[in-house]
Amino acid sequence: MNESHITFLPEGKTIIAAPGTRIIDLARLTGIDIPFTCGGKGTCGRCRVFVRKGMETLGPLSEAERGLLSPEEVTCGVRLGCALWSPVDGDLVIEIPEVQAEQLKIHTEGATIAIELDPTVKQYIIHNPGFKAKNLLSYEQLILDGLKNEHRLEQASFNYKALHELSKRAANHQDEALALTIWNDEEILSIDSHPKDGPYGIAIDIGTTTVVCYLLDLKVGKVISVSSASNSQAIMGDDVMSRIAAVTENQDNLFKLQMAVVESINRLIRDCCDAIGIAPMDIYECCCAGNTCMQHLFIGLSPQALGFFPYRPVIKRGLTVTARCLHPPLLMNLQGKIYLLPSIAGFVGGDNVAVQLIVNHLDSKSDIKLILDIGTNTEMALADSEGVVVCSCPSGPAFEGMHITYGVRGVIGAIERVSVTPGVFEVKYKTIGNNKPVGICGSGLVDAVAGFIQSGILQRNGAFKTDVDTPRLRTNTNGEREFVLAWKEETDIGRDIVIRQRDVVEFQKAKAAIQAAYKILMRKKGITEHQIGKIFIAGAFGQYIDPDNAITTGMLPPVPLEKIETIGNAAGSGARMVLISRKARREAEALAEKSDYLELSADPEFSLQFMQSMFFMSPQ
Amino acid sequence: MNESHITFLPEGKTIIAAPGTRIIDLARLTGIDIPFTCGGKGTCGRCRVFVRKGMETLGPLSEAERGLLSPEEVTCGVRLGCALWSPVDGDLVIEIPEVQAEQLKIHTEGATIAIELDPTVKQYIIHNPGFKAKNLLSYEQLILDGLKNEHRLEQASFNYKALHELSKRAANHQDEALALTIWNDEEILSIDSHPKDGPYGIAIDIGTTTVVCYLLDLKVGKVISVSSASNSQAIMGDDVMSRIAAVTENQDNLFKLQMAVVESINRLIRDCCDAIGIAPMDIYECCCAGNTCMQHLFIGLSPQALGFFPYRPVIKRGLTVTARCLHPPLLMNLQGKIYLLPSIAGFVGGDNVAVQLIVNHLDSKSDIKLILDIGTNTEMALADSEGVVVCSCPSGPAFEGMHITYGVRGVIGAIERVSVTPGVFEVKYKTIGNNKPVGICGSGLVDAVAGFIQSGILQRNGAFKTDVDTPRLRTNTNGEREFVLAWKEETDIGRDIVIRQRDVVEFQKAKAAIQAAYKILMRKKGITEHQIGKIFIAGAFGQYIDPDNAITTGMLPPVPLEKIETIGNAAGSGARMVLISRKARREAEALAEKSDYLELSADPEFSLQFMQSMFFMSPQ
Repeated sequence: MNESHITFLPEGKTIIAAPGTRIIDLARLTGIDIPFTCGGKGTCGRCRVFVRKGMETLGPLSEAERGLLSPEEVTCGVRLGCALWSPVDGDLVIEIPEVQAEQLKIHTEGATIAIELDPTVKQYIIHNPGFKAKNLLSYEQLILDGLKNEHRLEQASFNYKALHELSKRAANHQDEALALTIWNDEEILSIDSHPKDGPYGIAIDIGTTTVVCYLLDLKVGKVISVSSASNSQAIMGDDVMSRIAAVTENQDNLFKLQMAVVESINRLIRDCCDAIGIAPMDIYECCCAGNTCMQHLFIGLSPQALGFFPYRPVIKRGLTVTARCLHPPLLMNLQGKIYLLPSIAGFVGGDNVAVQLIVNHLDSKSDIKLILDIGTNTEMALADSEGVVVCSCPSGPAFEGMHITYGVRGVIGAIERVSVTPGVFEVKYKTIGNNKPVGICGSGLVDAVAGFIQSGILQRNGAFKTDVDTPRLRTNTNGEREFVLAWKEETDIGRDIVIRQRDVVEFQKAKAAIQAAYKILMRKKGITEHQIGKIFIAGAFGQYIDPDNAITTGMLPPVPLEKIETIGNAAGSGARMVLISRKARREAEALAEKSDYLELSADPEFSLQFMQSMFFMSPQ
Repeated sequence: MNESHITFLPEGKTIIAAPGTRIIDLARLTGIDIPFTCGGKGTCGRCRVFVRKGMETLGPLSEAERGLLSPEEVTCGVRLGCALWSPVDGDLVIEIPEVQAEQLKIHTEGATIAIELDPTVKQYIIHNPGFKAKNLLSYEQLILDGLKNEHRLEQASFNYKALHELSKRAANHQDEALALTIWNDEEILSIDSHPKDGPYGIAIDIGTTTVVCYLLDLKVGKVISVSSASNSQAIMGDDVMSRIAAVTENQDNLFKLQMAVVESINRLIRDCCDAIGIAPMDIYECCCAGNTCMQHLFIGLSPQALGFFPYRPVIKRGLTVTARCLHPPLLMNLQGKIYLLPSIAGFVGGDNVAVQLIVNHLDSKSDIKLILDIGTNTEMALADSEGVVVCSCPSGPAFEGMHITYGVRGVIGAIERVSVTPGVFEVKYKTIGNNKPVGICGSGLVDAVAGFIQSGILQRNGAFKTDVDTPRLRTNTNGEREFVLAWKEETDIGRDIVIRQRDVVEFQKAKAAIQAAYKILMRKKGITEHQIGKIFIAGAFGQYIDPDNAITTGMLPPVPLEKIETIGNAAGSGARMVLISRKARREAEALAEKSDYLELSADPEFSLQFMQSMFFMSPQ
C-alpha cells in the first residue's frame, strides 16, 4: 500500500497516511486543530491552510474552494483543509495559519479576539546600569533606579536567585546593558546580558483525556508552537471519579497521578521547544486551565474531598505558584510562575472559567447566553445581565463512544454523520477519513437518534416502535430491538453496525442530564428559550455535532440555528488569553467570583426534571 | 592536677577547669557572655549567677557579694560570677540568668530594654475550621474566613507547601482545631494540629571570627538557649579582605565560604535545639546581623565588589529570603524566612545597624551620641538630632593581639590589666584566670601604653624616651627599644614579656585610625567633645578596655567617664530584637535608610588627620 508523509506546520508533526484521507481528519488525529464550523462541508471556509510542499500531488480546486478562495489566495497556495486528501504518491507539507492570525488576537475556532498585549512576565532592558558610577548605591539599588527611570517601574524587587546572578555580574564590574525578566512588574526573576531571547510562556489545557500545550512568545503574544498528547493519568482510570478513588485508596497515587500529568506536559513542552529551537529555561510562565480535579492533581493537591459531598475544592481562587515549588518540576525556568485559573466548584473548574472568558470576548452584545461544554461531565453556564449561574451534570461517556455497543472515539472509520430518510428508512452515513465504517462516534450517535425521531421509529419514551416496515429495525437473538446502520458487507469489522435499544437508553440518560440542567438553569433565572441570545458550545465533541439534530433530540434548547456557535477548545484559548493579558486574568478572576454555582446532585428538582427529560419530543 | 567540671546553664556547656580559675573567665572561654561592666572588680553586680550545684565546694561570700546581694538572693543561691573560682575538688553547675530577665526585655550587657512582643512569625489557632459545614466554600476559604473571624487577619494567604498540607487534612475531613504558623500576618507557612509547639526563632550574630546563635521561643519572646563557636570561614583567612580575595581568586570559594559559615551556624542551631529538646523544623525565622561581607557570604552573594572602590554592596536594604532558597540549607523549617538586617555601606553592615538600634532604645534622651564598635575594622556612628553619620576605619588587628610581639587573644594567662607607677616604673598586671602570663591581649595593651604615657616613658611621637632610669626600658640585641612588662621568672613562657617600639607603632596606627575617624565625624557635624552626651562602646573587645586609659591614649575622646557605656555584643541583641518585634525591624530599616555614610578612604582630610593622630597627647 502506498503511503505519504503529511507534515503539519508550525507544529512540525508528521503523520504517515494512507492515500485518500482528508487533511482535516489527519490533523485531528495528530492532535492539531484545524478550525471549521460547518462540519467539514466546505461552506465555512475556516479551514484555510497553506500547501507548502506537494501541491502537484493534489487534485484541482474543488467547487467549494473556487467559491471561497480569492485568486490571490490561490496564488499563495491556500486551499481548504476539508477539500484536500492525502495523495496516492508523494508527501505534503501543510501550514496551518493559526499564528498568522493578526498579532495579539486569540484565535478560537470561530473567530479571533483582539486583546491588548500585557503579559504578566515581561522583559525590561536597562541600557546603562551605572555599575561604574562613583556613588555609594548598592547594585540592587542601581538596577531598581534603572527600572524606575527607564521604565517607570516603582514596585519591582529581586528574588533571591536574581540577586545571586546580580552579585556575579557585580564582580565582573562591566557596565553592559542588562535584560531583566520581571513577573507582574513586581518580582525580578532573572538578570541576563542584553540581547536575550524570550521570555516565552506556555498555556496548557489539561483535559481528563487529552493535554494540549501552546508555546507563546510573550514579547509579541503569538503562538509559536502547539503540541498535544493523551493525559498519562489514564493508567489510573478514564474519568475524574476513578482518579479521585485511586488517591483515596492509596495516598501514594496522588504523587503518581501528579507525576503522570507533569510527565505528559513536559514531553509536550519539549516537543514545542524543539520544534522552534528555544530553551525551556526561557519559559517563565505557564497558565493552566483544567477541571478542578485536574488542576488539583497537576499541582499535587489531594482531590479526595472532591469525592464526597459537598465536593469541596481545596482552593478555588486563581493560584500562582513558583515553578521551583513543584515536584516533579515542570520543564521551564524554575524561577518562573505557574498560574492556575480560578475554579467555581468541585466540578466546574478553571476550564469553564476560561470558556466563559472567551465567550465574554466573542459576544459582549447578547444579554442572555447559554454556554455548554459537553463531555463525560457537562458544564453549563447561563448568563444574563444580573450574573452567571453555572452547574455541572454527569452526562456519561456516551458521546465519547463509551457504553455504546458499537461506539468508538473519533478514529478513522468512525461514523460521524448519519441521516435516516423518513418513510423509506434509507440510511446515509459518512465516516472519518471516508474509510469503511468501524463503529459510531458521538456526533454520529446524535445524528442517528435524531434520524430515528424524525423518521418516527422511536416512541416518545425512547423505545423502538414495533410497527415499522424495514429490515433495518429488527429483534436480535437476545430478544433486544436494534437498528442496522451499516450492513456487514459495508463495514470493516465483518459485522452489522447497529444501534441497540440499550444504546438509545444510554443516549437518553446523557441528553436528559443535559436537558434537565439547562431547563433548571433557565427556570432559576426565569428565562424561556426565546430569550436566549446565543448558545455557545465548547469542547472537541461540541465542534462536530449537528446543532439541528442536537435540538431534535432535546440536547440543546430549540433556538434558531444562527444563535448557536461552536467555539472548539475554548479552554485552551482562555488559558492563552490570561497568559498574554493581565486584564484578561483579572476578568477571569472576577468571572469565577461572581458565578453562582448550583449543586444539582442536591437538588430534588433535578431528579424530577431528569426523569421528564428522558422523553423525546414529537418530531416537528 | 585536680580538675573540676563546670557546666553553664541554660546553654548546657561544660568546661574542664583547673582549680582557681574565675567563673566569668571560664564562661568567656566557652563563648558565653556573663555580663559585667566594672571589668570584674566586683562593683557593678551585673554578673549575678545561680549556683545550681556544688555550692559546698565554693568559698564564703566575698566582701563585694556581701555588699551587693540581698539576703533573699543569697538564700536562692545567687553569687557574683567575678567572685567565684573553680573549686579544687568537685563540680559546679552555674546558671546564667539571662533568660530570667523580665519577659520581653532584650538583655544587653548593661541594661534591659522593654519592647512589645510582636514577632514576624506567629501561631494562630482556628478552633473550628468548619470542614464539615454544608456550604460550598473551598477549604482555603474556610481557613481564611477563620483567620478573619477569630483573629481579624485580612491579608493572609497560603504558600504552596501549606496548601499541600491543607489538601491532606481536607481528605481526612476532621473538624479539629488547627494551628497555623504565619509570617508577617501574610503568608501561611504551615498548618498543624493544635496544640503545637513553637514557633521558635533564631537570632545570629555572624562575626568574622565568632558566630553566636540565640534560640528564642517566639510565643513569649524569650531566649531559651545560646551557643557560640568560631566562624569556620577562618580557613580562608582571618579577616574580611582575605575572604573577599579568596572569592576573587576562585569563584568556587564563594560556595566554600558560604558552606563554612552555614555549617558553623547549623552546629550551633543543633546545639541550641538539643539543649532544650526542640525540633529544628519548628524554627520558622532566623534574623542575622553581621558585617556586610559576612551577610553577603552567608546567603551566597559574591562579595567581590566589596574589594574595590566604591566598595559597593550587592544589596543594602533588609532582605527576607525563604529558607528553602538557601543552598546549603539552614537547619530550620524550609518554609520559614531568613531576615538579614539592612547594611549602610560595604564596610558598615547589619551588625552596625543592630548596634544603633540597641543604642536608640538604651538612650533616647541624649542629643548627641557617639557609637564605636572596635575591632580589626572599627565602625563608628555619630548621631545628633539631624541624623547619623557613620564611617568605618581599618584599625588593624592590634587589639586582637595580632602583629604585637607578645600579643595573644583573650586566653588564659593573657595580661588583661596593666598599670605602671610613674616615677618608679613599677609594673602591676593581672592575667585572665590569674595564671602566669603568656602574653598580652588588647585591653592590656591599651593599659600599658596609657601607663607609658602617664609615666612619661614615651615621647609625643610614640618613641620610647632614652633618659628614663629603669632596667625595664632597654635596648635589645637587635638595637630595638623595648619595655619589660613581666620578667622571665614570672611568665609561663620562659622569656621576658616585653612591649617593643614596633608594638607601640602598631598601637599608634590603630588608635590613630580611630581617633582620626571620630575627629572627622565630629568636624562634619560641627560638634566638640563637650557636646557629646554619651559614648557607647560595642563589641567584645570594648567590654574589657579601661575607658580612662583609652582616653589617655586618644582612642576615645576626652569625656567624663560616666558618659561612657559598654554594651557588649549589641549586634546579637539587635538581631534578637528584630526577631521579636516588627516595630524594631522597621526602626532598623529606617536607621539604615537615614544613616549618612562617609567614605574615609576617599577623604584626603582623613589621611591628614590620621598622621596628626599618630601623636600622643601630653599626660594630663
